[in-house]
Amino acid sequence: MSKLEEKLIEWRRDFHRHPETGFLEMRTASIVASVLDDLGFELRVGKDVMSSQHCMGKPGKEETEAHYQWALHNGAIKEYIEPFSEGYTGIVATWDTKKDGPTIAFRIDMDALDINESQEDSHFPQKEGFRSTLAYKMHACGHDAHTTIGLGLATLIAENKDSLKGKIKLIFQPAEEGTRGARSMAEANVVDDVDYFIASHIGTGVPDGHFVASKNGFLATSKLDITFKGVASHAGGNPEQGKNALLAAASAALNIYAIPRHSEGATRINVGELHAGSGRNIIADWAFLKIETRGENTEINEFVKAQAEAVIAGSAQMYGVEYEIQTVGEAISAEGSRELAGVLHASAEESPYILESVFEDNSPAGSEDATFFMERVQNNGGQATYCIFGTELAAGHHNEKFDINEKTLLSAVHVLFESIKKLN
Amino acid sequence: MSKLEEKLIEWRRDFHRHPETGFLEMRTASIVASVLDDLGFELRVGKDVMSSQHCMGKPGKEETEAHYQWALHNGAIKEYIEPFSEGYTGIVATWDTKKDGPTIAFRIDMDALDINESQEDSHFPQKEGFRSTLAYKMHACGHDAHTTIGLGLATLIAENKDSLKGKIKLIFQPAEEGTRGARSMAEANVVDDVDYFIASHIGTGVPDGHFVASKNGFLATSKLDITFKGVASHAGGNPEQGKNALLAAASAALNIYAIPRHSEGATRINVGELHAGSGRNIIADWAFLKIETRGENTEINEFVKAQAEAVIAGSAQMYGVEYEIQTVGEAISAEGSRELAGVLHASAEESPYILESVFEDNSPAGSEDATFFMERVQNNGGQATYCIFGTELAAGHHNEKFDINEKTLLSAVHVLFESIKKLN
Amino acid sequence: MSKLEEKLIEWRRDFHRHPETGFLEMRTASIVASVLDDLGFELRVGKDVMSSQHCMGKPGKEETEAHYQWALHNGAIKEYIEPFSEGYTGIVATWDTKKDGPTIAFRIDMDALDINESQEDSHFPQKEGFRSTLAYKMHACGHDAHTTIGLGLATLIAENKDSLKGKIKLIFQPAEEGTRGARSMAEANVVDDVDYFIASHIGTGVPDGHFVASKNGFLATSKLDITFKGVASHAGGNPEQGKNALLAAASAALNIYAIPRHSEGATRINVGELHAGSGRNIIADWAFLKIETRGENTEINEFVKAQAEAVIAGSAQMYGVEYEIQTVGEAISAEGSRELAGVLHASAEESPYILESVFEDNSPAGSEDATFFMERVQNNGGQATYCIFGTELAAGHHNEKFDINEKTLLSAVHVLFESIKKLN
Amino acid sequence: MSKLEEKLIEWRRDFHRHPETGFLEMRTASIVASVLDDLGFELRVGKDVMSSQHCMGKPGKEETEAHYQWALHNGAIKEYIEPFSEGYTGIVATWDTKKDGPTIAFRIDMDALDINESQEDSHFPQKEGFRSTLAYKMHACGHDAHTTIGLGLATLIAENKDSLKGKIKLIFQPAEEGTRGARSMAEANVVDDVDYFIASHIGTGVPDGHFVASKNGFLATSKLDITFKGVASHAGGNPEQGKNALLAAASAALNIYAIPRHSEGATRINVGELHAGSGRNIIADWAFLKIETRGENTEINEFVKAQAEAVIAGSAQMYGVEYEIQTVGEAISAEGSRELAGVLHASAEESPYILESVFEDNSPAGSEDATFFMERVQNNGGQATYCIFGTELAAGHHNEKFDINEKTLLSAVHVLFESIKKLN
Repeated sequence: MSKLEEKLIEWRRDFHRHPETGFLEMRTASIVASVLDDLGFELRVGKDVMSSQHCMGKPGKEETEAHYQWALHNGAIKEYIEPFSEGYTGIVATWDTKKDGPTIAFRIDMDALDINESQEDSHFPQKEGFRSTLAYKMHACGHDAHTTIGLGLATLIAENKDSLKGKIKLIFQPAEEGTRGARSMAEANVVDDVDYFIASHIGTGVPDGHFVASKNGFLATSKLDITFKGVASHAGGNPEQGKNALLAAASAALNIYAIPRHSEGATRINVGELHAGSGRNIIADWAFLKIETRGENTEINEFVKAQAEAVIAGSAQMYGVEYEIQTVGEAISAEGSRELAGVLHASAEESPYILESVFEDNSPAGSEDATFFMERVQNNGGQATYCIFGTELAAGHHNEKFDINEKTLLSAVHVLFESIKKLN
Repeated sequence: MSKLEEKLIEWRRDFHRHPETGFLEMRTASIVASVLDDLGFELRVGKDVMSSQHCMGKPGKEETEAHYQWALHNGAIKEYIEPFSEGYTGIVATWDTKKDGPTIAFRIDMDALDINESQEDSHFPQKEGFRSTLAYKMHACGHDAHTTIGLGLATLIAENKDSLKGKIKLIFQPAEEGTRGARSMAEANVVDDVDYFIASHIGTGVPDGHFVASKNGFLATSKLDITFKGVASHAGGNPEQGKNALLAAASAALNIYAIPRHSEGATRINVGELHAGSGRNIIADWAFLKIETRGENTEINEFVKAQAEAVIAGSAQMYGVEYEIQTVGEAISAEGSRELAGVLHASAEESPYILESVFEDNSPAGSEDATFFMERVQNNGGQATYCIFGTELAAGHHNEKFDINEKTLLSAVHVLFESIKKLN
Repeated sequence: MSKLEEKLIEWRRDFHRHPETGFLEMRTASIVASVLDDLGFELRVGKDVMSSQHCMGKPGKEETEAHYQWALHNGAIKEYIEPFSEGYTGIVATWDTKKDGPTIAFRIDMDALDINESQEDSHFPQKEGFRSTLAYKMHACGHDAHTTIGLGLATLIAENKDSLKGKIKLIFQPAEEGTRGARSMAEANVVDDVDYFIASHIGTGVPDGHFVASKNGFLATSKLDITFKGVASHAGGNPEQGKNALLAAASAALNIYAIPRHSEGATRINVGELHAGSGRNIIADWAFLKIETRGENTEINEFVKAQAEAVIAGSAQMYGVEYEIQTVGEAISAEGSRELAGVLHASAEESPYILESVFEDNSPAGSEDATFFMERVQNNGGQATYCIFGTELAAGHHNEKFDINEKTLLSAVHVLFESIKKLN
Repeated sequence: MSKLEEKLIEWRRDFHRHPETGFLEMRTASIVASVLDDLGFELRVGKDVMSSQHCMGKPGKEETEAHYQWALHNGAIKEYIEPFSEGYTGIVATWDTKKDGPTIAFRIDMDALDINESQEDSHFPQKEGFRSTLAYKMHACGHDAHTTIGLGLATLIAENKDSLKGKIKLIFQPAEEGTRGARSMAEANVVDDVDYFIASHIGTGVPDGHFVASKNGFLATSKLDITFKGVASHAGGNPEQGKNALLAAASAALNIYAIPRHSEGATRINVGELHAGSGRNIIADWAFLKIETRGENTEINEFVKAQAEAVIAGSAQMYGVEYEIQTVGEAISAEGSRELAGVLHASAEESPYILESVFEDNSPAGSEDATFFMERVQNNGGQATYCIFGTELAAGHHNEKFDINEKTLLSAVHVLFESIKKLN
């Protein structure tokens, strides 16, 4: 095993043991910043690279401070953590060759999930001793691998600096889960100078050793938190004095699912959670819903979202209750630039690590907020693509037994680095 | 059989053969006016005794004109029908004794129902040849008897004019069914000078020969017609272009039934009819609902009505459709004045025709718009009551086999006339 | 203008003036039978070519008999009408050349719609005096043209009999609207011997003079009539004694729209009509819904239909009411056979009447029960396609001002006839 | 202050500091048992006086054991606690005078609520240092006072033993809150030998120093916990594979509120809490509802409950999910025996502590499971009543600032004791 590969596995397992969810990636970011600084990258971090008003679904102050304390005591690099202490955990690391050439950017996401990692012996991280140290926090989507690949790519860039041209930007993004973090970095203009933008993901059902140069089909999505505020009253004594938030929520849920299909493309709608009421014998004075809408493109998603908002407003009016709609996540649709996809495809086909490369895959997929970067780059005349590194999965994404084949780490680093060379 | 009784039965069977529904009682009113004019009553009719803006659920022009033609060709008294031709079929007939004394008013309703009368031989009107001449029109609530009793009472008044004092007003009201007609006469001030107001009804489950001097417990009610107007679109081709009035109506119906109970008294709510949609494969662009609310008193009914209106507004907002709420009937609650009830009770106890008289019955009942008159009289310092003449019913009210014991006609005339003498 | 073209226009205008809806095409069928018999086709008609148990949404006896009387008095050919008198209005006309060769079948639909044709002068049929003679009946989808094209094609076949081989079957199908009639003919095995099956439609948005050789994308569909039967009671007096069919229907409607989207293809769901209730103050004892489901393929439609059935059963259980689900229309999905499509494409490209031919159009479309024939033929190893003759539309299909360019009639006849020659 | 009054206040404050919710009143019961044993009462406890199969909403084993440990370490009387350790915390204490005479029983409830007691200085228990020692546990309904009154009454009985006749039974009942405990004791036959049964409550809006000898109007009630179990699936990836428990619950909630009013008496229905779903992007695989029904009498409540059960079954069927209905509380209606009420009324009128006594109050009230005892006694030919000791309330029942006037304790003890003397 090469020294780089050893390092990659070490990084990945360290990140895996210390999963941090969206806007709390403080330990992770401090390590990333430390490594990149040592390698010689120029760093911009925290609020400098994130628009605070576009952070969606960011945890509250109390949770953020508590996590900061945890990070301080669990391996964060103290010299680098401070700018991330309020939850603005984005990093833009630039390598400027000072030679003419394009600006190439890579998006790397770092966040984990609220999942309790398996403790079964058959689960590789458990067996090898790098299972999550935290209950109900887990890297179950592979972003630990993504962060690792980013550091590996940075290492190769630094090692090969003399042979490179133009600028390379590594964008470490918080809170991809729930599609909450990318927009705040895009709005902070971090990709406005980018000619080529490459996001990547590991796994997603693509077989081990396979590569997809242009994964399209991401659904535009909105994640909404809905709150209804009614008036409590005793259900036996004075039912007429209550304003029933539970009924408003139930009616909203039912009617939201009844939003019409769209003739121009697929839609999705889900009320994933509903919680309401303060006790059996009390007219419910509050209700809370977690909703998500999706559409085959941004316009279709906007249609569904607007319908959902009308249903919510109408439900509130029905029962005389107040309501609030908060957007806690959002992603748009995007399509890969074919020229750039071709470069990645070629890099993969030449790679000794890749068994087979597919040019594009247009089948419907989930949602991704890397699309905010992609749209921005393409609108500025640049090119963008989203590629997939297939790997062997122990279980599906977001499953408590999720695990990858660590060989994919080196493979991904190589393909991405080769694509830089081709684009130079 | 007395000559008066013969006449009563003749009138009743004639009215029964020619049932006219609310605001179309043109033939009936022309006969009533003719008889009363002949007897010497002073008549005020039509728009003089009805506020057109308070007529609720009045049929449209076309239907009204068609019925006028029917009446002209089916026994209406031509000299008297013209003022009723536009559907303002109320009559106030006053007998002024020119002697000091109280003003006593009687409310008499005249309208029939949209019911198809039984053709079975066991049905007395069929057997005796006075079944309704019209399909789906029937005196199935006894208002033919009420009109008859009013004419009988007028006859006794005229015959006994010298022994009477004060004024007597006979108020023939249209459209009691659906509680649509009384308010327009009350708003035209026809009872503003009344000291004693007596409304009466036949049947209602009170046994043959029994009498109730003060029937209370009428529920306040509102009758609402709801229209939703959406936008049609092809359900297969462009479902997203429609604004679904059917869904708005279904959601309204469901949530209207969910209006809370009231701790201060009984409520009722019903969506009696719902019609929506223009075809199987079209997003429904219209919907229509017939609703009624009730409450143990006027305030409680207003509460239910306001909730229903909020639900309707909210449903419309949910689906982006327009809506209209039309009040097509309304009644309030009222309570009989005990002193006046006592007079009626005494009259009944002395009557040879009445087996047993009950002073009051406070059990819950349906709705009655005579309550508009009652409230107005009581607010002006007068007294009012609502009494019941029990009779043997062949079948319940609003049933196609409904029929009364015709002996009750004379009995009612006598008790009401005796009460005039007692109040003089 | 050629004599054939004159005849085509004459036929079309006659059919247009006498529109007959599904399973009532008695006058039309009698004329078709008469013409084809005269030309020398061998005829099989009525129940011989229709499985009565697979007729969906067929009108009742009374309506059928009444229409039969109308047809007798409005130009039906008496010698041919009798077999159609019970509403089995299908015809299979076979031309057997007695020479070896393939069996080629054409599907022709004949039914009209319940639409009131425009009386505006700008509406061509009104101006030219061939507007529908019946209120609320109209050929607003072009099936009058289809029938005409069928007769024109038959004429060319007869005229050119010596140059043809194999067999040609003209299948005149009732009740395509609502996708109700094709299945009954397919189940009667009328296409079981067919090698090439061609269905066609005029218009559908394809530009005048254009042709589509293989129109795919028809959605599988089910048309359901739902009846709920509850128990009436007085809404004021005894609300607890009712079983509310209106609420069951409203709840069914709402929850039917909430049936989940399907990840494998488009779905549609519509409750096009809802009617319920017997009066404002009565707990509704009946409700009726017209529903349709659609799916990108037959399996997806079956999924939606099964979900709808579960919702209906659950709604009935909620309110203790009885229910009945009747399938009154059904179509499946199908895909054109490429080889046969190629033949039609070639015929069209060679035609002097066609400006441009498109090989295939896979965009989503409505539903068509010709798919039952197509599936059957393909399952037997034959080929099938559905082609479109573009025409200039005065207004969209199913619109009261719908009209076609009559020049398309001759054009369609020629292309279809040429395709026979190519397939021989 | 008398020595008894001092003791009453001491007991009350001790119980107030150590609130125990239903079926966990182990510490309380151990003290009660200890005091009564010392006084000379004959004790039957735990499962001997409770039917385990009729305990409703009893906490699970784990919670019960944990509370047992807490009680052991927080003042429970070790010699008496063991029989209560599994949560069967009822006590029947009998004083048998061995002289002929009636058997008189008193119902005393002991349980607290899940409410967080106020820490404001203005709150008397806080100021005086006897605020609850437990977060989210509080005697906010006065059952601490009830238990105290029971011990005070026992004290007077023992002190006056020679002047008494017959038997006196003190029934200490668990879990009155949620109407969960009485039935299990009634079913264990503890009142089957009782001639006079007296339940009492403090406060409830009756003014300080006032007394109500017969409080009627309790609504029959059922408390239901509903669980729906569906199937999770990814809302974006495979919505059709889910079975949506949230939608079943929302539909159930909406339709449960739509249960019809009852013409024979008041009803109530409430869905107090609804919780559903495992995440925003997952089709919800579980839902939980807390429901209660009420009726003016037992039959009416049974009607509402049966309707609710039908709605729940129907909702589950709609969405193909499983469901479970658990009855976690129940009470019936009852009416006080007038003769016994007269005795209490007389006792109160003679009492120097009572300013005014009201014979009966029939206004609608909440629910009480003492009604199970009352019905049983009355069915056996005995008499029963439910009386109220008015007191000054710092805030309403179930409010975090609830507090009573401690002077009411002695007053209640005296009236109850006097009633024994009168009944002897």
